[in-house]
Amino acid sequence: MASRTEISTVGEFGLIRLLTDNISTGNSTTIRGIGDDAAVLEYTNSQILVTTDLLLEGIHFDLSYSPLKHIGYKAAIVNFSDIYAMNGHPKQITVSIGISKRFCIEDLEEFYMGLKLACNVYGVDIIGGDTSTSLTGFSISITCIGEADRNKIVYRHGAKESDIICVSGDLGAAYMGLQLLEREKNIFEVGPKDFVADFSGKEYLLERQLKPEARKDVIDLLEQAGIIPTAMIDISDGLSSELLHIAQASGVGCRIYEDRIPIDYQTAAMAETFNMNLVTAALNGGEDYELLFTVPLSFYDAIAAINAIHVIGYVTEAEQGCFLVGRDGGEIPLVAQGWNTLET
Amino acid sequence: MASRTEISTVGEFGLIRLLTDNISTGNSTTIRGIGDDAAVLEYTNSQILVTTDLLLEGIHFDLSYSPLKHIGYKAAIVNFSDIYAMNGHPKQITVSIGISKRFCIEDLEEFYMGLKLACNVYGVDIIGGDTSTSLTGFSISITCIGEADRNKIVYRHGAKESDIICVSGDLGAAYMGLQLLEREKNIFEVGPKDFVADFSGKEYLLERQLKPEARKDVIDLLEQAGIIPTAMIDISDGLSSELLHIAQASGVGCRIYEDRIPIDYQTAAMAETFNMNLVTAALNGGEDYELLFTVPLSFYDAIAAINAIHVIGYVTEAEQGCFLVGRDGGEIPLVAQGWNTLET
Repeated sequence: MASRTEISTVGEFGLIRLLTDNISTGNSTTIRGIGDDAAVLEYTNSQILVTTDLLLEGIHFDLSYSPLKHIGYKAAIVNFSDIYAMNGHPKQITVSIGISKRFCIEDLEEFYMGLKLACNVYGVDIIGGDTSTSLTGFSISITCIGEADRNKIVYRHGAKESDIICVSGDLGAAYMGLQLLEREKNIFEVGPKDFVADFSGKEYLLERQLKPEARKDVIDLLEQAGIIPTAMIDISDGLSSELLHIAQASGVGCRIYEDRIPIDYQTAAMAETFNMNLVTAALNGGEDYELLFTVPLSFYDAIAAINAIHVIGYVTEAEQGCFLVGRDGGEIPLVAQGWNTLET
Repeated sequence: MASRTEISTVGEFGLIRLLTDNISTGNSTTIRGIGDDAAVLEYTNSQILVTTDLLLEGIHFDLSYSPLKHIGYKAAIVNFSDIYAMNGHPKQITVSIGISKRFCIEDLEEFYMGLKLACNVYGVDIIGGDTSTSLTGFSISITCIGEADRNKIVYRHGAKESDIICVSGDLGAAYMGLQLLEREKNIFEVGPKDFVADFSGKEYLLERQLKPEARKDVIDLLEQAGIIPTAMIDISDGLSSELLHIAQASGVGCRIYEDRIPIDYQTAAMAETFNMNLVTAALNGGEDYELLFTVPLSFYDAIAAINAIHVIGYVTEAEQGCFLVGRDGGEIPLVAQGWNTLET
């Protein structure tokens, strides 16, 4: 059985020391990290990107099937993804956590292990944070600071008519992974005692949900190809919603093609098995952390040469609206899906 | 009766628009604020300070006696205070909130009103954030970014033997304000139905607890006097704890004098009425948001000329330890008070 050391045995300052003692910083922009009232950075030659995400237990993650190490990894990744979506590179994060008595030191060490792993992989320094008690559950707030060349920052508002619309990787898998985990959780709770979940053939879906990656590789590939997108966003709420953000910010319309939306075969198989709408999963599932961007038509060949990127449609005048063109040629309006109801 | 509009009537994107639509930015370092995957800043001529605080309902604030407007104000102030404690100036904040169904749009507008007021008073831009549902209560995470002259940043680790120890304002009042509010809350809950709290003569204590200020004025006064402290920290956890942070980081000891600790007469009167230990409140109460700093002895006269600053002791060799010298000349070791037990 895993050992359990109560946080009360070390106290607040002891806990902070324990979690942060072996954290060192590596980026030239980090002058001073953890250990004072504020961290000190220096960005004399570039602009600075700042993004923040709040992750709450029961809303953004479920500890019954998400290991704390994966939660730490994912909490970092979702922030890195926002920085890449500006065509920048993440360099520093601050990490605040609120924890109830339910959690022990080993839990927090596991969480930090995932966090540090993500930071090592992506070259990011942990420079500060806040550790607090909470009355209920686990709250995580991460702010990420990144570096960007002032002439290469990509906003949401630059898409132009006739630009092509591109997306990296594939969509809908993280959503299917979530459905799968929720389903197995329900069976586990009400089913036979000797139930063991069988995830074979669905590993990719689980990985996309539990341990997503941010598309640093795509940013690097675009840089190498000399392509600066006209508009870019990362897909956290679903393709539809993000494309509408670009269209609205840029004052344009769009057409995307159902048969161009990249979908992994495990995603498709799962939709088949569970009788779910595959296109809905790809359009509105969210948590893909892929990059959605527009580039001038003249880059078509250069984009086509990059395996990780798929052209899914084109930008139109605003008056033409935003539509998905189905396999039968029929047009369906794109709809944004935020959270429209609040949990109790 | 106050009107109540459910958040579900506007949805996530509608809510974010509602709260952020009239937010504009004013600082030259803010290139782009709310509205993209990340905010964009530019600090070519100075260093950047970053600090973050997580505030959770039931732990850091109690909505039964703290109006949401005050909570918004205080949430900003506690972050500004950390930036001033580095001898810098706060310039930007990101604001993430997690809210349960209990809260309506009017509640969030009130919270934002306080937040915006603090930002206006201190010249800070709101540049981004995250809005999320929560299963329980109200969570607030603020990250503050500030500007500092690279040659004037003050860390905790620069205190030298024979430096004098200074503190701004007075201590213990915010703690007394909290005791007062908790006491009236208890009476209200179990006492007669027609109970009306009488806070006359205790207004200062309430103000210090509910609507604290950050000591921008002290930073400006030091600048005008040409004084750069050798070490500085803001008092959030209590004088004892913060002084020990400076001593530990600087590798020094200290002596502070009980009769030099600045205490307001309302704080003293309350201690008398409730038979509480005044020195304990001043040493360990916390939430004072005053500045604690050390300066070379040669600045004694310059410091003495500033009303808002009090000299409370001096720095010694590490071997001499950290002590409070009582009125009778007896020495009591200083003890750090973090949270050593976790709430359930």
